[in-house]
Amino acid sequence: MRYTAKQLKSFIKATFLASGASAEHAALASEALVAADLRGVDSHGVARLSGYIRLWQQQRLNMQPDIQITHETPSTAVVDGDLGAGLVVAQKAMNIAINKARNAGTGWVAVKNSNHFGIAGYHAMQALQHDMIGICMTNASPLVAPTFSKDRLLGTNPIAVAIPASQQPPFVMDMATTPAANGKLEVCERQNTPIPAGWAQTKEGQATTSNQALKNGGAMLPLGSDRQRGSHKGYCLGAWVDIFSAVLSGANYGPWVPPFVAFLPPLPQQVGEGIGHFVGAMRIDAFRPAEDFKAHMDNWIKTFRNAHSVNGEKVQIPGDQERTIEAERLQLGIPIHPQVLQDLKALSKELGIKAL
Amino acid sequence: MRYTAKQLKSFIKATFLASGASAEHAALASEALVAADLRGVDSHGVARLSGYIRLWQQQRLNMQPDIQITHETPSTAVVDGDLGAGLVVAQKAMNIAINKARNAGTGWVAVKNSNHFGIAGYHAMQALQHDMIGICMTNASPLVAPTFSKDRLLGTNPIAVAIPASQQPPFVMDMATTPAANGKLEVCERQNTPIPAGWAQTKEGQATTSNQALKNGGAMLPLGSDRQRGSHKGYCLGAWVDIFSAVLSGANYGPWVPPFVAFLPPLPQQVGEGIGHFVGAMRIDAFRPAEDFKAHMDNWIKTFRNAHSVNGEKVQIPGDQERTIEAERLQLGIPIHPQVLQDLKALSKELGIKAL
Repeated sequence: MRYTAKQLKSFIKATFLASGASAEHAALASEALVAADLRGVDSHGVARLSGYIRLWQQQRLNMQPDIQITHETPSTAVVDGDLGAGLVVAQKAMNIAINKARNAGTGWVAVKNSNHFGIAGYHAMQALQHDMIGICMTNASPLVAPTFSKDRLLGTNPIAVAIPASQQPPFVMDMATTPAANGKLEVCERQNTPIPAGWAQTKEGQATTSNQALKNGGAMLPLGSDRQRGSHKGYCLGAWVDIFSAVLSGANYGPWVPPFVAFLPPLPQQVGEGIGHFVGAMRIDAFRPAEDFKAHMDNWIKTFRNAHSVNGEKVQIPGDQERTIEAERLQLGIPIHPQVLQDLKALSKELGIKAL
Repeated sequence: MRYTAKQLKSFIKATFLASGASAEHAALASEALVAADLRGVDSHGVARLSGYIRLWQQQRLNMQPDIQITHETPSTAVVDGDLGAGLVVAQKAMNIAINKARNAGTGWVAVKNSNHFGIAGYHAMQALQHDMIGICMTNASPLVAPTFSKDRLLGTNPIAVAIPASQQPPFVMDMATTPAANGKLEVCERQNTPIPAGWAQTKEGQATTSNQALKNGGAMLPLGSDRQRGSHKGYCLGAWVDIFSAVLSGANYGPWVPPFVAFLPPLPQQVGEGIGHFVGAMRIDAFRPAEDFKAHMDNWIKTFRNAHSVNGEKVQIPGDQERTIEAERLQLGIPIHPQVLQDLKALSKELGIKAL
């Protein structure tokens, strides 16, 4: 079944409203979630909606958060998300970063006491319309083992950077700091196919292609996959995101990051509040005239896109793939997996709202 | 042969002075180069000294640069390195970033018209003594093919992040955005052993373990090695560094980045000036009290270091390995390869200075 973005947004808004969120917050949340569906990141869109509601039911997510700046300087702020949905909190934080950038050239906001925020790229892209570069990171519940560790200590901790161009579409990277997102392992499990080499390890820290690796106490591997191919660099990247998101802000880091799924409890003796994000905005003309910059970005993009490519393949610009999917889905609608649809149906019944 | 850091610094200073550099610049350059040797990054230390001199002899490096801010806001600046040695220019840029961070909370400096700056980690670490986080990136001459490209369009474009702790040593990541640095490929060539899988591709874009891959028109691969293991993410990282270092500043990017080796000419019709760097400094207490932050960093570091590890291995913190080597080399001296020694001997004769 396919649905229009508008249909999905209405449904998401209704669930948030029924859970006590304000109209403003419900709208913000629906925009962020549907952006993931439109861009083809199905694991981070409406498929997660019931997850947010379950957390709210357990009082691990606040639908009426009082989102506040707790500390600031001309170019920085710390935001307390009051345990709100990251979908909303991150957008508020990004707005603060953009406003700081207007005055100070750049703005950087570390966020504590938040929850899952959807896709990092959506938040980073908010800067583009202001001729700014947007940056966004978040930590996430621990699934990844650092190089040579048997323990899961890091999330898939994504980094997104959105950079405006002129005639060309913007450069938008949005990457987990692992070879593949967790959702791709779940697909292999559903289809009962082995996972590719380099994605996961066993409980004992040995390489594996078993799609049961995580269920059996194993872990995801950092980008690079093994020491020889540079997994210690993927570990560095994930660690960097964890520290900026949580140690700078006062959120939970490493093994203490609370799980998104409501059936797993957070670790006891939390070291901070909620999960953490780190967002930034940089005014292009704080460095050079925006027109100059964007003309060179056009040249950069064309140069890379026109590179000689391996037979049958294409050199893509970060963001190309998501844009292609978005154009298609805006036209044909967004396909929703039958299992997700069933889940949403149950949710609508439970909340007493109109089914999707 | 082993030499003390002091001996190497004196020799480097003498070469820079003999090439017309000021005493201040000669000292700055010697500190940055020897830091690489001390930390075990032999490819980026005194082994490169003659390379800087060759560039100067070709008037592609200015020993008396007038390093200037060309544009600024409270938290940003663009610096024109006047074609100076990156070793010096990057330190000046980092100082500007640190001063901006004092007032605005953070400081971000994009640098154009520079040259190779040694190791990124050294520059990032300058922030630590001020209770700041240091960040440093640079682009470099094209050796790396984006995913599915046959063409070399990116350098090994490193990212360094230095974060202070309290009782624990600082977190210092300093990583090329490729599985291995180019110097490691050269070691395989010298020893005539194959390179590990995942490091390089042939001219036609096929995976290879030939240590002649680059000589035969092939390319290094981005971190992730292949599409399935996430090489598109390594490509994103290298691209990000390229754009921040050069498109923000007005330096050369992509295939136009001038080569470090003087026997290769830069591409014609340059799109900017020299090579580019991007450095930043963030005051810890622009986010939360420095003592709180550093206490949590101690906890972060201990938690990760004490993870259960794969048999016979150790979970390291970014910076551990370099610190171990530095402690050893401070005690035993810095080993210099016979070939490098010969090169330095020839250099001292040529410049009329005392041999090492």
